[in-house]
Amino acid sequence: MNYAEILTRLGIGEADLAGGSLAVRTPIDGSEIAKVPELAPEKMADVIATSKAAFKKWRMVPAPRRGELVRLLGEELRAAKDDLGQLVTLEAGKIFQEGLGEVQEMIDICDFAVGLSRQLYGLTIASERPGHRMQETWHPIGPVGIISAFNFPVAVWSWNAALALVCGNPVIWKPSEKTPLTALACQKILEKAIARFGDDAPAGLSQVVIGGAALGEALVTSEDVPVISATGSTRMGRIVGPKVAERFGRSILELGGNNAMIVSPTADLEMAVRAIVFSAVGTAGQRCTTLRRLFVHDSVYDQLIPRLVKAYAGVPAGNPLEQGVLMGPLIDSDSFDRMQGSLAAAKETGATVHGGARQLEDKFPNGYYVTPAIVEMKSQEQVMKDETFAPILYVMRYSDLDDAIDMQNDVPQGLSSCIFSTDVRETEAFLSDAGSDCGIANVNIGPSGAEIGGAFGGEKETGGGRESGSDAWKAYMRRATNTINYSRELPLAQGIKFDID
Amino acid sequence: MNYAEILTRLGIGEADLAGGSLAVRTPIDGSEIAKVPELAPEKMADVIATSKAAFKKWRMVPAPRRGELVRLLGEELRAAKDDLGQLVTLEAGKIFQEGLGEVQEMIDICDFAVGLSRQLYGLTIASERPGHRMQETWHPIGPVGIISAFNFPVAVWSWNAALALVCGNPVIWKPSEKTPLTALACQKILEKAIARFGDDAPAGLSQVVIGGAALGEALVTSEDVPVISATGSTRMGRIVGPKVAERFGRSILELGGNNAMIVSPTADLEMAVRAIVFSAVGTAGQRCTTLRRLFVHDSVYDQLIPRLVKAYAGVPAGNPLEQGVLMGPLIDSDSFDRMQGSLAAAKETGATVHGGARQLEDKFPNGYYVTPAIVEMKSQEQVMKDETFAPILYVMRYSDLDDAIDMQNDVPQGLSSCIFSTDVRETEAFLSDAGSDCGIANVNIGPSGAEIGGAFGGEKETGGGRESGSDAWKAYMRRATNTINYSRELPLAQGIKFDID
Amino acid sequence: MNYAEILTRLGIGEADLAGGSLAVRTPIDGSEIAKVPELAPEKMADVIATSKAAFKKWRMVPAPRRGELVRLLGEELRAAKDDLGQLVTLEAGKIFQEGLGEVQEMIDICDFAVGLSRQLYGLTIASERPGHRMQETWHPIGPVGIISAFNFPVAVWSWNAALALVCGNPVIWKPSEKTPLTALACQKILEKAIARFGDDAPAGLSQVVIGGAALGEALVTSEDVPVISATGSTRMGRIVGPKVAERFGRSILELGGNNAMIVSPTADLEMAVRAIVFSAVGTAGQRCTTLRRLFVHDSVYDQLIPRLVKAYAGVPAGNPLEQGVLMGPLIDSDSFDRMQGSLAAAKETGATVHGGARQLEDKFPNGYYVTPAIVEMKSQEQVMKDETFAPILYVMRYSDLDDAIDMQNDVPQGLSSCIFSTDVRETEAFLSDAGSDCGIANVNIGPSGAEIGGAFGGEKETGGGRESGSDAWKAYMRRATNTINYSRELPLAQGIKFDID
Amino acid sequence: MNYAEILTRLGIGEADLAGGSLAVRTPIDGSEIAKVPELAPEKMADVIATSKAAFKKWRMVPAPRRGELVRLLGEELRAAKDDLGQLVTLEAGKIFQEGLGEVQEMIDICDFAVGLSRQLYGLTIASERPGHRMQETWHPIGPVGIISAFNFPVAVWSWNAALALVCGNPVIWKPSEKTPLTALACQKILEKAIARFGDDAPAGLSQVVIGGAALGEALVTSEDVPVISATGSTRMGRIVGPKVAERFGRSILELGGNNAMIVSPTADLEMAVRAIVFSAVGTAGQRCTTLRRLFVHDSVYDQLIPRLVKAYAGVPAGNPLEQGVLMGPLIDSDSFDRMQGSLAAAKETGATVHGGARQLEDKFPNGYYVTPAIVEMKSQEQVMKDETFAPILYVMRYSDLDDAIDMQNDVPQGLSSCIFSTDVRETEAFLSDAGSDCGIANVNIGPSGAEIGGAFGGEKETGGGRESGSDAWKAYMRRATNTINYSRELPLAQGIKFDID
Repeated sequence: MNYAEILTRLGIGEADLAGGSLAVRTPIDGSEIAKVPELAPEKMADVIATSKAAFKKWRMVPAPRRGELVRLLGEELRAAKDDLGQLVTLEAGKIFQEGLGEVQEMIDICDFAVGLSRQLYGLTIASERPGHRMQETWHPIGPVGIISAFNFPVAVWSWNAALALVCGNPVIWKPSEKTPLTALACQKILEKAIARFGDDAPAGLSQVVIGGAALGEALVTSEDVPVISATGSTRMGRIVGPKVAERFGRSILELGGNNAMIVSPTADLEMAVRAIVFSAVGTAGQRCTTLRRLFVHDSVYDQLIPRLVKAYAGVPAGNPLEQGVLMGPLIDSDSFDRMQGSLAAAKETGATVHGGARQLEDKFPNGYYVTPAIVEMKSQEQVMKDETFAPILYVMRYSDLDDAIDMQNDVPQGLSSCIFSTDVRETEAFLSDAGSDCGIANVNIGPSGAEIGGAFGGEKETGGGRESGSDAWKAYMRRATNTINYSRELPLAQGIKFDID
Repeated sequence: MNYAEILTRLGIGEADLAGGSLAVRTPIDGSEIAKVPELAPEKMADVIATSKAAFKKWRMVPAPRRGELVRLLGEELRAAKDDLGQLVTLEAGKIFQEGLGEVQEMIDICDFAVGLSRQLYGLTIASERPGHRMQETWHPIGPVGIISAFNFPVAVWSWNAALALVCGNPVIWKPSEKTPLTALACQKILEKAIARFGDDAPAGLSQVVIGGAALGEALVTSEDVPVISATGSTRMGRIVGPKVAERFGRSILELGGNNAMIVSPTADLEMAVRAIVFSAVGTAGQRCTTLRRLFVHDSVYDQLIPRLVKAYAGVPAGNPLEQGVLMGPLIDSDSFDRMQGSLAAAKETGATVHGGARQLEDKFPNGYYVTPAIVEMKSQEQVMKDETFAPILYVMRYSDLDDAIDMQNDVPQGLSSCIFSTDVRETEAFLSDAGSDCGIANVNIGPSGAEIGGAFGGEKETGGGRESGSDAWKAYMRRATNTINYSRELPLAQGIKFDID
Repeated sequence: MNYAEILTRLGIGEADLAGGSLAVRTPIDGSEIAKVPELAPEKMADVIATSKAAFKKWRMVPAPRRGELVRLLGEELRAAKDDLGQLVTLEAGKIFQEGLGEVQEMIDICDFAVGLSRQLYGLTIASERPGHRMQETWHPIGPVGIISAFNFPVAVWSWNAALALVCGNPVIWKPSEKTPLTALACQKILEKAIARFGDDAPAGLSQVVIGGAALGEALVTSEDVPVISATGSTRMGRIVGPKVAERFGRSILELGGNNAMIVSPTADLEMAVRAIVFSAVGTAGQRCTTLRRLFVHDSVYDQLIPRLVKAYAGVPAGNPLEQGVLMGPLIDSDSFDRMQGSLAAAKETGATVHGGARQLEDKFPNGYYVTPAIVEMKSQEQVMKDETFAPILYVMRYSDLDDAIDMQNDVPQGLSSCIFSTDVRETEAFLSDAGSDCGIANVNIGPSGAEIGGAFGGEKETGGGRESGSDAWKAYMRRATNTINYSRELPLAQGIKFDID
Repeated sequence: MNYAEILTRLGIGEADLAGGSLAVRTPIDGSEIAKVPELAPEKMADVIATSKAAFKKWRMVPAPRRGELVRLLGEELRAAKDDLGQLVTLEAGKIFQEGLGEVQEMIDICDFAVGLSRQLYGLTIASERPGHRMQETWHPIGPVGIISAFNFPVAVWSWNAALALVCGNPVIWKPSEKTPLTALACQKILEKAIARFGDDAPAGLSQVVIGGAALGEALVTSEDVPVISATGSTRMGRIVGPKVAERFGRSILELGGNNAMIVSPTADLEMAVRAIVFSAVGTAGQRCTTLRRLFVHDSVYDQLIPRLVKAYAGVPAGNPLEQGVLMGPLIDSDSFDRMQGSLAAAKETGATVHGGARQLEDKFPNGYYVTPAIVEMKSQEQVMKDETFAPILYVMRYSDLDDAIDMQNDVPQGLSSCIFSTDVRETEAFLSDAGSDCGIANVNIGPSGAEIGGAFGGEKETGGGRESGSDAWKAYMRRATNTINYSRELPLAQGIKFDID
């Protein structure tokens, strides 16, 4: 692992790490990669002031020109794809293929945002009054605070930053304390794009701030940061949401998921197995869209589960930088402990647990590798309704599709879901008003791995935010409704008469 | 004032008022009109349970059929327009013309919602994977709690209810304690429509709950009410918003406004005077969109203010049911006291106050009629940045348009605003990214009196919600992003490779 | 049949029929109902001049106000539903249930158009130049000529008229010479609405012109009629389209269909039989969306066809005003002759023909009633690729879905199509880029009976026009792209430099 | 002029010109640059067959992947910008700055189309039937024929090709016989992008065919080319439109413009002069959006015209490759003759003509350089209603804005228009339903130089097509309306009852 070279190629030098106090450890083997300097919470006010000043200038740059910066960012990301992908693997522990996939997602959102930069469509609207016209327009809103989690250390930033920048807003990014290096790398990549872009980009257009909860609080409570986009746990969201609401800011929350799959009698089981393994085991079960619950029809349960158990046994775990490895480590020992706790709680309910033990401890005494777990549950107990960020797949039988959908919906989270079925009545029912209540509902693909063209997010404890495609960009702008009277009369709406002499 | 007959015609009978405990007083003369029964807060759970059950049925009724109910509601409102308009006047004190206007707004939103019921458009989206398709669909979300204020006692409900019903949701309405009769009347009108509509409408589709803060809290904190639409003061919103956020609900907040007009050198002053008087004095200054701040260019200040003072002197105040009267009473004595407090505070800053005194005290010893006030300020002091719900118009000079826009934006509220100017460079600057930061920004019409076709609401302390037209309906639905794989392959997004044997 | 009373109730009196020269015969028994006056082609110029003058006024009426007229039209249609439905039956020969359905469609489009009247959304668009804004707006375009066919004598008019009126355009309607009475009735109903609406509606807003091809030509070739919406045969469209193109007008063509159904191995055959009978036999096979071709998978062919033959045998034909009757007469003897010709041609190719003979000749010597025909084809011969406006259903086997889709697409027409299957891979393939090439493609419902919320029409010889829902309204307006420079600079797009001193 | 090197750098080698029969002359000095091979009209069938085969493959490539090809095309265009810009200048005679601007427009549309490739949004639509859903989807349609004119030899192709390719269609391009080299160069640039893109791009995805009217006719009349996008003269469109209509194809016509500017009393005259010179003189008056008619208010006429005459006198004409030159040659001697004819016709009506004579004849005996002409007209005579493709600006006085707008609209063409005014009532009136009837209507910028974000085109003899931004992409796709029944019932739309046993 020659990470020093990677850092150098990504432009992170000694100056960037001088005075570093936050130790960054790779989950691969628990070793320290670097010490990164932190920002004192009381310095956040300066950061925000800089961002506010940048906003005044950036909002005056025409949107298609702002799009050009994002286009250049996309080019720089293409150039840095391998290095950044490796750094993601190093810092977050996901396999290199997934590291690359995450960077590709960044590139995709840049392409999308460039197109948006000549749209940002508002509406012209028919007015009821003669000599009047109406329109709805969208405007830059101000600094956007981005709080991201370790598991998607770079893509989530890009989703927010690409849209925010095109929409005319500067960004302030507080990455996870576990993944600050990838954040510094992204900032460097963006700075390269800015250098090519030229003077229209004001100083402080993008800032990275590294630190803990107090720093986050300073960002979240500032009245000068109209939008907070926070990705992470429900616990975090339950703190952030009210704080932002109290000061009348806008939150874009992407919180927990407890994602399910229904496997119906008509499912293509071969495809289902592949989809289950990827979505339950990928990123070592640490995606917000990881498959956590599996509802299998009685008629296929006894075929599917053994195949699954067998497939699980064949998942190669190990150093995520190595080719062929499909599952890397958990992020840290806390994560491992929580996983074991959940498995124990499940067993207490009478569940049968396959796998879930630690592995490779000899090779990586400070790396937390596990075998992925399949847990056959008798009913949907509380442990199954909680999100444990680990490769645990709870499995249950069902006999009636409506029941399966009810169970799927009977959790506090609302992010992602899917059905495997070839029966159009079942698939449509699953997508209907009475179907899955998640923000993402798929057919014959797993719950994870969204394309950037759709809106990403979900209701309930998932937080309600939407990012990425569709009209998610509207969350980064303020809307104005305009009525323009170009007549010489002053008629009132709703035909009201109010005549003074 | 034969209000008993009005109540009867509107279908409110003795049974509806039996056991009434909440005294309803008309602000016209302070007399008690009726006693209305209140709901104990502990009964809210039943109300919500009923609504939830209604939801399960109503969401299965096709949207165009739901639209038919709203069309019938529009018909019933047309039939009841005069009676309901009078009851609004009686209970809220606004002049009859404005009462009629409010009912017309209800009718308009019904027409609009009927059209929507065959739209509720989601998107089909190009997918990056062969044999896949993507779509974004919108679904009913559940019971919608509506909290409304005394000043628009019926229109605000209809904005929310017409959309919520078409979107597949039942509604629970907690009206202002000052205006419960109009709420009961609306419920009766809707029930007439439901009776014509037939059995597809489940019991409890619309419920009115009357009571105080504890009742409101029971509604706001319920996890079974996914959407809370609350109209009222910033103070209220600062409580409601975080409470809803804490339980991951969705708020639609329509809070305070501190709305301004800029009068530029090229303004048509004749039109400006008319617009100012209507928007500052109408509803006795108790609209959320009431004009409260006036920035006048130096070159026309000395022409405009005397004309305005003169026009104010000619505003006929009195019983709002009487023809010719343009200004009714304040809602109550508290409101009067707050107005006097603000005027005193303004004077302390050196302001010149025209008008603002109580009038008609002899005729209405318990009715709080005032002369509308014009307050010439030397600078934008704190009193001017607060919203006082009364007919006070703060006036200031400006010499540079950018300064005027800065002053206009330099308040915590963000609802409505306008410019009077015939210079297209000024009017466009006012509407631009660097112009007014309000949700509503008009040209050559006042800040109040929006058409229902546009989205209504604003940022900052106004709360960020949008109601009525444009895509405001989306706030009443849950969004799902669907990817459907109809191939026999399982490609991953972003080109990720993850192959198990 | 007391049609005189119906005419009276619909407001058609002697004055309307004075000097009548065009004999109207009911296909029920061939008897003459009335003689209707015709317009000489040389009078068309006056009609168009009146329409043009009406346009100048009507376009100035705000769109939501125009919507109010259409709302009133909807009310009047509701009131006249039974009478107009019966007149449709009388004049066009379709069963009363279908007559009512046609009027319901008129009512639905009115509701939809009322909602549209507060939308007619254009776009505001991000501009690449500082101090500039862009927008796209939609404007009334001028008189709309409507040419309609006998088989939907009233609905097609309403689709066009409701949208055209809301969009700010007057209409000139040339109905089929076979169904002028229903046209007169619609005009009367609209006039009632106009009377309630008041003076904003200019004289000549809607005009009906009755006559033959020369009259149509005068309408089609006029440069003062920017939009021609023509529904009818491909033969007609091949004449009208180029004539309108030559004068740079806009055509909305709704021409022939040769609509197919694919019945796959997984189809619900019970539902398929019902759908086939309704869509092949309804309106005696004289809908543009009538099912004409049936592709049945080998594995179910021998089950389905006998059931179908049996069901056909049970279709009650007769006087379409009588309850229980499901199939009325063909429109006239020419139609009958063409049907017999097609059956003969099919037989020559070796096809097996079930049914198709004349019936009820004794009772209705001048009414052309037939038994509906099922024609088992060996291959898709030319006769099957032509549209014969009669209840002939050509049936073929298939073994591979791709082949079935190819056959379905291998006709010159492109209106409607459907698949019966419960396999989502099949249904999605049918709807995909490689699936049906028709403007309408359904799953598990027949090809006919569209809701008004979608756009109606198809490519190829169907003519390419779209009517009814979605953004079909845009065809009735002219689009303008606006760039507004509110700066003091004059930058050029694409960064071009062009400096004069 | 080392054009050989340019051709080499653009990849055009001897093989490409082998057997060349069509002489390409630069309008700069009339010299022959190259001989280009032509395609025999009877070979068009092969070209179309190749395109059809390519279509079958290309439509199966997911749209975002198709977008990737267009992104690569954008990159290649950036790399070739200078060379292609020079070749445009060489072949079409426009100044190098405009040549570069044209290539920039190509780059811009590529960026825009890449974004589109993840959108191509259809709609999901509320259905009136339980257990049903509706959607509107957009699909590739087939080969797109592009016919372009000499004056925008490359941009027009890119507008069509970028959208067509993203929409899933191959393209066949017949460029002007006067500018085949730039077409070959574009094809080479696209081939470079295709080479990088890889095997997903089928052979024959883009083809260039060079030849005359017979070749064009073979393209236009083919039933296998569903879309013809033709840019050029109204005369051409009057032939093409009906031919395409006759075979039920779809035309996108961008034909003549006779574009006007209104200069009102409040106009910024300094800006007006600059805008007039650029838009009337740029490209030597040979843009479709060239300013041809100027309506000046009485009160400023006598100020403006002399300034304009003076500015015209200072326009440096000459070799368009030389820096500082603002006006190059006319395309050929025919063009010069038509210009002189129009000037003579204008003089006969009593007009005063400034400029318009040939210049630089000594230096370029075979290059047709003129001085731009200002023609003061007494009334809007026929010569002014015709489009003469040359730098002639007809000028007239007006006193009332409505009259000016009437005159502006009183020509058969409807492409572009603008007003210079700072009075918002005037500017809004100009943009209103009663304002300019052109597809493009601007305020305080000239009629030419559109950004790619808006739809480009106009009504009347301009042909009605729209290209470039907004929803212009829909013209390159076929629309399908789908209703999917996933219930076990078969309800009919409009509540029709049709029950068989």
